[in-house]
Amino acid sequence: MFDTILNHRSIRKYTGDPIPARILDYILEAGTRASTTGNMQVYSIIVTTDGSVKKELSPCHFNQSMVMEAPVVLTFCADFNRFSKWCRLRKAEPGYDNFLSFFTAAIDALLVAQNVCVAAEDSGLGICYLGTTTYMAGKIIEVLGLPPGVVPVTTVTVGYPAEDPGLTDRLPLEAVVHAERYRDYSDADIEKLYREKELIKSYQEFVKENDKETLAQVFTDVRYTKHDNVLFSRSLLEVLKKQGFMNHQ
Amino acid sequence: MFDTILNHRSIRKYTGDPIPARILDYILEAGTRASTTGNMQVYSIIVTTDGSVKKELSPCHFNQSMVMEAPVVLTFCADFNRFSKWCRLRKAEPGYDNFLSFFTAAIDALLVAQNVCVAAEDSGLGICYLGTTTYMAGKIIEVLGLPPGVVPVTTVTVGYPAEDPGLTDRLPLEAVVHAERYRDYSDADIEKLYREKELIKSYQEFVKENDKETLAQVFTDVRYTKHDNVLFSRSLLEVLKKQGFMNHQ
Repeated sequence: MFDTILNHRSIRKYTGDPIPARILDYILEAGTRASTTGNMQVYSIIVTTDGSVKKELSPCHFNQSMVMEAPVVLTFCADFNRFSKWCRLRKAEPGYDNFLSFFTAAIDALLVAQNVCVAAEDSGLGICYLGTTTYMAGKIIEVLGLPPGVVPVTTVTVGYPAEDPGLTDRLPLEAVVHAERYRDYSDADIEKLYREKELIKSYQEFVKENDKETLAQVFTDVRYTKHDNVLFSRSLLEVLKKQGFMNHQ
Repeated sequence: MFDTILNHRSIRKYTGDPIPARILDYILEAGTRASTTGNMQVYSIIVTTDGSVKKELSPCHFNQSMVMEAPVVLTFCADFNRFSKWCRLRKAEPGYDNFLSFFTAAIDALLVAQNVCVAAEDSGLGICYLGTTTYMAGKIIEVLGLPPGVVPVTTVTVGYPAEDPGLTDRLPLEAVVHAERYRDYSDADIEKLYREKELIKSYQEFVKENDKETLAQVFTDVRYTKHDNVLFSRSLLEVLKKQGFMNHQ
């Protein structure tokens, strides 16, 4: 099990093999065993395998090839729609049209997603998370027909690996772990903690290719720019409002 | 591994045994192997073991006994502070003071948390998630000294189990899984999907104890009320603003 977790690599190329229904059910079942707030299970998983639906999803994920090539695309959603319907059928007035409830449901969905991924990898499958989900939530809602109370929070493509990439570098453990309370970082700490990362040859080439001076500039100026972040922040907050999660009266 | 995931139970009572440093490092290391957006690792984990710090955290978690009794309390935080500091040291202007960046970092932190939990359980430890984290984020920020750019998103208590509870019920898989697109629920669907849950004896007693007519009313009127949700929504949004994640200019 540790091996499974410690050897995680995102897999972006898949063989054409479908995932047997028995294995798919198994990994979804593993998802549902994750902790969930008050055992409300305020999430849904959309399992997309049909080529025509994937074709509609593809642009929502900036046409990353995994969406079309993976046999299964899983969209994990924060979902208070089902729970609220149950409440109304049981003479109970749901009060879940607010930001706290959205975030509670998002936590549920994300813990489920990670359980599914660990179980998938332990079954010999490869997975890749698509961060584009929150950028394009509004369009995904249209494609998948998500009603009010439901917001997609992450997407995972799943299939049998057709590549065997090396482990991705990580910062040393001490960079992300704090003892007792938060110990803020001095310039010297940052220098030390990021040194190894900055020496990686492929990153240095990446900086050159992008015609930048530092690796950090590739992030701020190319990959995750303020302009895009502000745009996607506004559209995500609009989506939360439209799906009925911003009523604070 | 499937056994570990499929047998997950929240553990709320712990033996007095401490967690060996080697095992703690191992499960934290497992956490860092989780997928992270752009490999930015925009999260931090605060490991609290000291009784005096736990005493300060305890009221933030409504004095749930696990905080004082578990040998280790892990607070998982969305953290763009470290990454932004690195950017500034490298002539790069970080643009991560917005809601999208907060949510990206929260996803990172939650996938890490679930990896840590699975690894912990696979090592014979028991865990319990504390949903109170988002309700009391402002107070936790004070206690743990979290700087701008850092917001706690969930807390997990960890220790050796001193109880062996049964598995918690879950809705049938078909309740949370949708094929291809979202299939909304009819009243008949809801009746069918929640039937088994409503027949569980302990829930029926729970309804009586709370002097309610239905199980759903226990949720809406007692456990997760609109009043509390609105209050906590406002304070969580205030926290996001105060920690510098709401600049959309």
